[in-house]
This record gives sequence, C-alpha cells and structure tokens, in this order.
Amino acid sequence: MSVYSKELSVPSRKRVELLSMTSQVGSVVSESKIKTGICLLFSPHTTTAIFTNENESNLLADIEEALEKLIPVGGSYRHNRIDSNSDAHLRGILVSNSLTVPIEGGSLALGTWQTIFFADFDGPRHRRVKVTVVGE
Amino acid sequence: MSVYSKELSVPSRKRVELLSMTSQVGSVVSESKIKTGICLLFSPHTTTAIFTNENESNLLADIEEALEKLIPVGGSYRHNRIDSNSDAHLRGILVSNSLTVPIEGGSLALGTWQTIFFADFDGPRHRRVKVTVVGE
Amino acid sequence: MSVYSKELSVPSRKRVELLSMTSQVGSVVSESKIKTGICLLFSPHTTTAIFTNENESNLLADIEEALEKLIPVGGSYRHNRIDSNSDAHLRGILVSNSLTVPIEGGSLALGTWQTIFFADFDGPRHRRVKVTVVGE
Repeated sequence: MSVYSKELSVPSRKRVELLSMTSQVGSVVSESKIKTGICLLFSPHTTTAIFTNENESNLLADIEEALEKLIPVGGSYRHNRIDSNSDAHLRGILVSNSLTVPIEGGSLALGTWQTIFFADFDGPRHRRVKVTVVGE
Repeated sequence: MSVYSKELSVPSRKRVELLSMTSQVGSVVSESKIKTGICLLFSPHTTTAIFTNENESNLLADIEEALEKLIPVGGSYRHNRIDSNSDAHLRGILVSNSLTVPIEGGSLALGTWQTIFFADFDGPRHRRVKVTVVGE
Repeated sequence: MSVYSKELSVPSRKRVELLSMTSQVGSVVSESKIKTGICLLFSPHTTTAIFTNENESNLLADIEEALEKLIPVGGSYRHNRIDSNSDAHLRGILVSNSLTVPIEGGSLALGTWQTIFFADFDGPRHRRVKVTVVGE
C-alpha cells in the first residue's frame, strides 16, 4: 500500500467553464504505479466544482443553463457586497468540490461515457486540483 | 493495509427508481475482511446517483418530486436532440455519482436511519456499481 | 500505511445551522500521525450535510437562502405526515453527507479560503461526525 500525490494546474478562460481533466488525472495515476485503489480529486478553491459526466457539447450547455436556473448569476446575494461571486460559491456547494474515482489495472475505472470535469464558476483563473492516489 | 474491489449488478425496473443497496454493499465489506477503513461506491454511468438517506416510502416520493421540480423530465434541453435523457444527466450531477462510507468493526459504519441508495434516472437498465474497500 | 478513526461531537443550537469544524478535524489528523493521505468526514445522520467553502457571514446567509429557495422548509412533503423534516432530508441529499479532504505534511490540505462546514438542517441536536484518516 502506498500514497502518491500531485497538484495539477487547470487554467480556465471564461467565467463559467467546464473543462475535461481526465487525461491529466490519468497521467498522475500512471505515475503513481498504483494498480488497485482510489484516486481523490480535490479543488482547494471555493468557487469551483469537480464531477464526472458525459462530454457532449449540448449536455454541457444544458448543465450551464440548469445551474443558471437554480442559482442565477444575477441573483440578489449578500456576499456580492464583498465579492461579486456568491453564485459561484453556491454552485460549488451544490455540485461538490471533490470526486473520488476507483483505480483498476493501473487506470481510472471510469465508465464508457464518463469524463472528469473541472468546473470553474468564477474564472478565468489559474486553478489547481490536488490528486491523491491511495492503493497498492 | 489492503484493497478489495468488486463490481455489483443493480438492475432497475422503472425510468426513475431509488434502490436500496445497503445489504449488497455490506456483503462486499464482509468478503473484504477489512475491519477499519473506507468503502468507495462509484457508479460508472452518467445518468445515475448514489447517496445515503432514510428508507421511508413517503420520503422517497418527496425525493422524486423535489428532483422533478429542480430538473423537470419534460424540460427543454439541447442534449435531448441526441438522446432524450438530459434531465437524468443533470440530476446525476446534482446528487453525485459516488459515495464513501467508513468501515468500523468489519461493517459499514452507517447511522441508524441510513440506507445506501442507488438512483437510476434513466432506467430500466442493467446498472453496475464499483465497490472499493481500503483499510486494514 | 495505517488507518485512524475517531467520532467527533457537533452540537447544533438552531434548526438550520452551518458550523465550522475545521479545527476539530485538524486535531484528529494531528493525532493520527498520518503525514500523507486522505481524511473522510461522514455524517451518520439523514438531515445534515458536510461541505467546504468560505467562512464569510454574508455567504452563509446566502447559502441558507439558496437552500430555502430550492427546498423550502414550508413546502408540501409527504414525509411530513410522519416527521416534519422532509426539507432537511432533501437538503442533505442535495448538498452531500460526506467530504474527503487530502492530507499533506500531516495537515488538512485545504485552500486559503476553505473552511469545513457541518450543516444541521433539523437541529438543535447532538450530532456526530465520523472521521477516518487513511495514509502513511
């Protein structure tokens, strides 16, 4: 059993952006030489999210629209007196700021249609994701 | 320290269905012989969710109704041009597609009222759940 | 590699309350003597949540207000015939009842603005959080 950890850079280019990071995370799992175990992805930010779903452009537009209906960017928020990004914090809480994926045969055990997404809700920024692989 | 992993089958019978899988997961934890640690449940699908809550029939109806209000099945979604299940993808992102439960004394350390649920939002289908137990 | 686990007490004082538990969890990580790995926080309750975000009073009010819009306390729920807290169950499912944080250098690897919150949606009650640290 061992632990391998690495921090990845994820630069975003828009305020709201859904970025695939499957191949970046897959490289860390390869480097770890861990064959069976789990891989934690954790965003050290408060206006981001990490999740897995299908990488289909229409669906990505639906995700952005659904979040806009549930937590509108232009809503009336108290935190916006301090920093105009309360919607981004709230979306991060709703979607979740971390993800754990099983490792099988030295690779991420994702399903056929699964992509790992990093969501920036308050970009563009230089974001980081902490990857921790635990296993044997 | 060791890792034990197994894939479970979860067949759903309706489009939207909340299925208890606590006993199936408990059996995997027993098989693993791991006494203390963590158990990751991961769905390799993109239109499902895994969560823990109370197994009470009125509450299960409330969960389905709340999801229908937040992400209506009959909403207008771009992804539905390709596959008529965007609502199911969006619900999976909102609820989360994985769950990690602690293990104590060789069993799932669930609270008195906690059941582990697999949610299918685009059934009926043959679904799978990857169980990964890490501990000693 | 080893596992260290401990149960924390989290007393809430209001029906809906967001409580910082970062320092309590940090103490468990110190006690564990684990330097690199992961820390699972799991609530054994069905009307609570655990998440990480910024500890800013205006934002905390926004979180409560956003949850009230998405899942109103006074909504019409079937489960309320049995126990008047369906909203609390539904909020717990939406936000998530557990959180996994990486450990680096013997400490929680949280970002600058991240606080670990325990959310009680059906307090005031004596709540518990199970902390499981896995690593080396």
